[in-house]
Amino acid sequence: MKTIFLLCALVAITYPLQAQDLQLPAPTRSGGKALMETLNERRSERSFVKKEMPLQTLSDLLWAANGFNRPDKRTAPTASNRQEQEIYVIIKDKAYHHDARQNILKFIASGDFSAALGQGNITANAAVNIVIVADNNKASQKYAHLDSGYISQNIYLYAASAGLGTVARGSYNGQALSAALKLPEKQEVTLVHPVGYLK
Amino acid sequence: MKTIFLLCALVAITYPLQAQDLQLPAPTRSGGKALMETLNERRSERSFVKKEMPLQTLSDLLWAANGFNRPDKRTAPTASNRQEQEIYVIIKDKAYHHDARQNILKFIASGDFSAALGQGNITANAAVNIVIVADNNKASQKYAHLDSGYISQNIYLYAASAGLGTVARGSYNGQALSAALKLPEKQEVTLVHPVGYLK
Repeated sequence: MKTIFLLCALVAITYPLQAQDLQLPAPTRSGGKALMETLNERRSERSFVKKEMPLQTLSDLLWAANGFNRPDKRTAPTASNRQEQEIYVIIKDKAYHHDARQNILKFIASGDFSAALGQGNITANAAVNIVIVADNNKASQKYAHLDSGYISQNIYLYAASAGLGTVARGSYNGQALSAALKLPEKQEVTLVHPVGYLK
Repeated sequence: MKTIFLLCALVAITYPLQAQDLQLPAPTRSGGKALMETLNERRSERSFVKKEMPLQTLSDLLWAANGFNRPDKRTAPTASNRQEQEIYVIIKDKAYHHDARQNILKFIASGDFSAALGQGNITANAAVNIVIVADNNKASQKYAHLDSGYISQNIYLYAASAGLGTVARGSYNGQALSAALKLPEKQEVTLVHPVGYLK
């Protein structure tokens, strides 16, 4: 009986992971630079050297961006806790949706996303491109945009603290990106956030 | 000659300060909790005990929110560095506009702002109510809202780091608040941020 229960629990835990999904290690929820120094160093960086991001760094970055810091609440607030923000991650030629509860990058598609992402070397040289998406079914457009700002600032601050570079960009091809990420109707890309290693 | 020069410099420095303005001490641009702990503790708090906020804390809070961390750049980014965000502060029966360059709270008006702020005890018991305003002359509405999110997150994180409480609120009386703060046309209140001491 105990064995069956354990087996069921194991299946329940591992079920969401498909062949091309990426299980991220648990995020480190402590450490980093002091907040005021981090704010002092927050800036936009557009020049990166190509380098892979370790999965631990990626996990920490995504947790900082919009991870759960309480059972049903996150590092970034949303109006009336509607949680209408979704995070997609493009790494080289693969696109993923971040499942923040399971801490899994769910595989969406592979392909050449450079035209959809736009911005030439900025996105091409970034280790990862985070795409922030708001679900306009769940929130008014005011809050869909405002709430994306919280996540974007978390990414900026994580980058400043971890010695990485990032910039929030609005000049992507929204239609192409929505198609590439297979976004459901009324989900809108609000920002593209290349995160990379500094020269 | 030297005396005249010094006198002129003194007049130039002190000129912006009017009788009811508040000169804030220089902000502390270091210290605070580690970023990941701060993110872990970020939350919305709505219950405060009435207590005055020391000017140093207020200065640090406002610098964290949207202060200059470089000659022409701030702790919170804006799209294309348009800097269309303005911060107003209501302390008891006085309203001020924050001049982030001079670090002065410029007096706007005195009166009873409780109806305009709304939200009963939340705003009434807060030590200060920060009002975030976007200038729609300078930025599209998407970025006017998105950019307010950066500032709001900075306030949340400062509060989490300093052991204060805060919550971003959308249920204010926008028309009354705009009139009370004497906002120019096309400037829009995007959020009210009570910041207070926890019970």
